[in-house]
Amino acid sequence: MNVVSRQGDRHGRLPKSTRRILAALALALAANAWNGRAWAQEAEARTIPSRILPVPDTVSAALQKLIGQPLSPPQEIPRTAEEWRALVNQPPPPDSSRRFAAFCDKFGVAVAPRVIGGVGCFVVTPKAVRAANRNRLLLGLHHGGWVGAAGEGGLTEAVVIAGLTGTKVISVDYRLLPDHPFPAAMDDAMAVWKEVVKMARPENIAVFGSSVGGAMVLSLVQRARREGLPLPGAVMSGSPWSDLSKTGDSYYTNDGVDGDLSYSGFWEAVARLYANGRDLKDPLISPVYGDFRGFPPTYLVTGTRDLFLSNTVRVHQRLLQAGVPAQLEVGEGQSHMHYLEAATRDAPEGAELYSHIARFFDAHLGH
Amino acid sequence: MNVVSRQGDRHGRLPKSTRRILAALALALAANAWNGRAWAQEAEARTIPSRILPVPDTVSAALQKLIGQPLSPPQEIPRTAEEWRALVNQPPPPDSSRRFAAFCDKFGVAVAPRVIGGVGCFVVTPKAVRAANRNRLLLGLHHGGWVGAAGEGGLTEAVVIAGLTGTKVISVDYRLLPDHPFPAAMDDAMAVWKEVVKMARPENIAVFGSSVGGAMVLSLVQRARREGLPLPGAVMSGSPWSDLSKTGDSYYTNDGVDGDLSYSGFWEAVARLYANGRDLKDPLISPVYGDFRGFPPTYLVTGTRDLFLSNTVRVHQRLLQAGVPAQLEVGEGQSHMHYLEAATRDAPEGAELYSHIARFFDAHLGH
Repeated sequence: MNVVSRQGDRHGRLPKSTRRILAALALALAANAWNGRAWAQEAEARTIPSRILPVPDTVSAALQKLIGQPLSPPQEIPRTAEEWRALVNQPPPPDSSRRFAAFCDKFGVAVAPRVIGGVGCFVVTPKAVRAANRNRLLLGLHHGGWVGAAGEGGLTEAVVIAGLTGTKVISVDYRLLPDHPFPAAMDDAMAVWKEVVKMARPENIAVFGSSVGGAMVLSLVQRARREGLPLPGAVMSGSPWSDLSKTGDSYYTNDGVDGDLSYSGFWEAVARLYANGRDLKDPLISPVYGDFRGFPPTYLVTGTRDLFLSNTVRVHQRLLQAGVPAQLEVGEGQSHMHYLEAATRDAPEGAELYSHIARFFDAHLGH
Repeated sequence: MNVVSRQGDRHGRLPKSTRRILAALALALAANAWNGRAWAQEAEARTIPSRILPVPDTVSAALQKLIGQPLSPPQEIPRTAEEWRALVNQPPPPDSSRRFAAFCDKFGVAVAPRVIGGVGCFVVTPKAVRAANRNRLLLGLHHGGWVGAAGEGGLTEAVVIAGLTGTKVISVDYRLLPDHPFPAAMDDAMAVWKEVVKMARPENIAVFGSSVGGAMVLSLVQRARREGLPLPGAVMSGSPWSDLSKTGDSYYTNDGVDGDLSYSGFWEAVARLYANGRDLKDPLISPVYGDFRGFPPTYLVTGTRDLFLSNTVRVHQRLLQAGVPAQLEVGEGQSHMHYLEAATRDAPEGAELYSHIARFFDAHLGH
């Protein structure tokens, strides 16, 4: 459809042309600061009106179904340590063992518990380890917000990565809240790190994790560097909770847009519980404020709707500033960690993302 | 602050524990499809309530000021070809020549008009061409939505890139709407491309552009490949209008969030005017639907608030699927093309972004 009439105005006049042309300036000459677009005022917040957010048709049918799920009801905040314990230590759903076995079978992996450096871990071994990965090892730090995903429940990404990349994974079953705030989980991760660097050459090891796990892998590298320990050969950090304070654009732009995650209320309480009195911007618990010099090549993942979009792109920016080879991938339409749920739900975007991780690890790890 | 009381409930009961624990499942076991999180229903749109969007404090003071500008009033849509012509051909603001000279001086470049392949162009030459860039050339396709930024008004990004990278730029002053819909602008770009590949080795040439220019550089590579012409050695595509139809998540998630750009109304009319009767998803005018095989290394730029966030990440996805080395950078808090306005307004994020482009070109172009 061509909206232009070639006839022109029959009176030969240009009604309201002055007003229109003035408005056009801002549009047509956007980014032309030199050409007369003046600042209107000091920076100020803006009111965004209510609107309908459709499910994008630019993703697979399976991912559309995931994106179109209704929001979960707000999580009630436990009021006592006992209530936190009840939440964190809730028994697994019925039939969980059978489901987990089927899940491992689907991704072609075997899982065995193993204590490493005094810390409970799981070794996830693909039935078919790729030849190029024989001398490689992946260390996984799971998601779950320090209040969930204990035991086998924390192995989802480990199973997916082991299966889809054909690499052996060690996943750390680190201590959780409320009884083990910072630095317990990181102490566990470091104790395991000190042992795995004896099991393979550090440059043959990649560390990975999502959400709190994605932040913990960043903290692991920062702490290893401070303590003079070897560094891994590559890092994958998915949608990291890199800033425990509500700081960053997408905490606001994607609030209510992210289908799975909102900060105020439950997760803010978790952040304070984990921080255990520390400032939420302490670089030891919010690694975006830490030192990124000397990082190994790092792959970052987020989504257009991710509440942690800014947590991810801010880390990317810090890595680029430090001259680190860093790759960022943003999933169309995806909320927090949708790439992993996509992989478990057979949405093709999931396997595709992990194939990029596999390619990245393959390009950067030693043999 | 530690929100947990270590005392527990004084009655030893866990009130509402069943309800709480059930709600906790979705949170703590997110992405654990294998562990009992069932689909709630078919995918459906969601209502996002009205909210206040603060200016992020995670960017420089200068960028905060840009982000905090109020929205421009809606652009009135011209009703006749004459009205479109009046809008497109409006005279430059008073004092424009002096301002442009000062702008060129600031970035240390000289500008000269030159007809290349029968098409009006500008040659933008840095006073200090970097030694490594002596045999390199950049071809720029400017922004302006095919309805603005003609002549010197289209040289903003060319001047910035020439100055900040120390490389000679040729910028194409391609034909505009309403009198020259598709394929006129692309025909102009291709006519120039056929000549510049005689002025430098194609592998020493990068093409760059933002917004419609960012889409046109993608179309240029696709068309060069179809026509058996040499390809450039690298591409920079900033916030490309890669899909002229309103397709993609951020057309909705960032509507009203992007401080500069909205689709419905004026820009939809521009899209139809440019398409001149073609389907807006025709790969010739919406290059995200085109073929990305064989692309040279490509750098993509967008922002967390960019209306074209999805237009950019969808191109990234297509490039990754085609196995092309592709880098994506997402500016914290930034709307459409804020990186360029940042560069002209002395917000440090601007120069930083273009330093990454310089590094990328340097890594991938021949010498």
